[in-house]
Amino acid sequence: MGERLVGVRERAGAVQVGLLGADGRTVTVLAGLEAFWDDPAALMASGPGADAPVLDLADVELVPPVLPGARVICIGLNYLKHVAEGSFSGEALPDHPTLFARWPASLTVGGAAVPVPSNEEGLDWEGEVVAWVGSRLVDATPDEALAAVVGYSTFNDLTSRRAQKLTSQWILGKNGDRSGPLGPLVPAAEVGDLRDGLRVETRVNGEVVQEGRTDEMVYTVGDTLSLISHTFTLNPGDLLATGTPSGVGYSRTPPWLLQPGDVVEVEVERLGVLSNPIVDNVARRAT
Amino acid sequence: MGERLVGVRERAGAVQVGLLGADGRTVTVLAGLEAFWDDPAALMASGPGADAPVLDLADVELVPPVLPGARVICIGLNYLKHVAEGSFSGEALPDHPTLFARWPASLTVGGAAVPVPSNEEGLDWEGEVVAWVGSRLVDATPDEALAAVVGYSTFNDLTSRRAQKLTSQWILGKNGDRSGPLGPLVPAAEVGDLRDGLRVETRVNGEVVQEGRTDEMVYTVGDTLSLISHTFTLNPGDLLATGTPSGVGYSRTPPWLLQPGDVVEVEVERLGVLSNPIVDNVARRAT
Repeated sequence: MGERLVGVRERAGAVQVGLLGADGRTVTVLAGLEAFWDDPAALMASGPGADAPVLDLADVELVPPVLPGARVICIGLNYLKHVAEGSFSGEALPDHPTLFARWPASLTVGGAAVPVPSNEEGLDWEGEVVAWVGSRLVDATPDEALAAVVGYSTFNDLTSRRAQKLTSQWILGKNGDRSGPLGPLVPAAEVGDLRDGLRVETRVNGEVVQEGRTDEMVYTVGDTLSLISHTFTLNPGDLLATGTPSGVGYSRTPPWLLQPGDVVEVEVERLGVLSNPIVDNVARRAT
Repeated sequence: MGERLVGVRERAGAVQVGLLGADGRTVTVLAGLEAFWDDPAALMASGPGADAPVLDLADVELVPPVLPGARVICIGLNYLKHVAEGSFSGEALPDHPTLFARWPASLTVGGAAVPVPSNEEGLDWEGEVVAWVGSRLVDATPDEALAAVVGYSTFNDLTSRRAQKLTSQWILGKNGDRSGPLGPLVPAAEVGDLRDGLRVETRVNGEVVQEGRTDEMVYTVGDTLSLISHTFTLNPGDLLATGTPSGVGYSRTPPWLLQPGDVVEVEVERLGVLSNPIVDNVARRAT
């Protein structure tokens, strides 16, 4: 395993960004969250200092290494077979990526229990890849935008379908509590080009429900970040979720949605596995 | 003038929340941003301590008193005459409020210059009222949700219409740099009930372009926050933008959009005036 960057919070302390140890039990601190995103590429290149603190994961809380003020921009329809299976199947593919928003408050990590809201029949899975923006982008070209990506992570865009489809706009159903599990950041240099076709697989209780490859994407990371940067300035720490392949649950006959007790896993080649148990809405009141 | 709460940042310092002085030139500090939103109602009730710092506005930067991790949830179609003038006029009014997302990074204050992106014909105005959530809401009733509102502000939901209408989802065009000017927070107790019908007026270079009253809203603040709280937990500091009356620019014949050099003002009864100049895209590169 190469470099895996994670966020950790010491008891009642601030979030730090560090490198996950090869045994998955320790984290070597690179920098505080804000300091890391001031210059992530330089900190990743230099690595931890000789006297960098090494934290035992048993002593800290694992958290997404995401700035509270970051934007999580998500592509809604980016794999043709997913477009064909959903409620937009009757419409022409738009010339531009369909973008929706998550607030960072909806993000969590692998292992976290994700609650089903009381007014949903269950949660739907959407395994995908997230790209992390590493520098400021204003009116960037696609090449400039792609060069600014410092890493990628496995992501599960868990969706409250009923809330998503209440009106024309999707964001309510895309921001449920802890509905966005996010894996460690893997440096872009290790990942290479998404056009190599990284395998994306989602499993429910061990059964494969989604299989796709990142070279099937309609809209590339560079083109999409370039487009966005012409409307708003992208900052280091912003994230782009690149969309999910076919095989989601709501469009099946009969529909199949995640229930409390289920375990959902997303595995992306070179990025790793993200596994989350699903729990009852009661967990929302207890948080 | 009653209490007006603003955010200020001392040179290179953290954001503080304080009370704007009656002469508009000083701010009496109530608390740091995070501490304020830990218990806003209590801090507003107790007021500043006897030894609270009084800052000269000339020495500090005025900023929105918004947590970086707050959610800005916006109602898209909430005044019938606005629904009738726009691109959704042919569709039935949905049973639920149409919600879209702003990230706090898009917010700014009155007086800030708002740039027109290079790929837009101009910016459109949307004068409206924002409600501030003051306590945690999970599966709340409409009454509980309304009781959690600690204040209201004047808001201008300045929109990049081209980007908004590129695909089915609006968020790209709703998050332009500094496109969300937000006035001071006015305590809910001073504002009373939005159903009293507060006048909302937008002016461009002094000419009235929107006139509405808050009792024309289809979806109330309490009902909408209750709905949201059943999908995701609302936290103190989250904001609900309540939608705009009729009179926006893009649906006019011919269309009328804000150009560099224009000044746009939103005035809401009991909440005050918000005035912003429009500038060229060049300002984005300079920030």
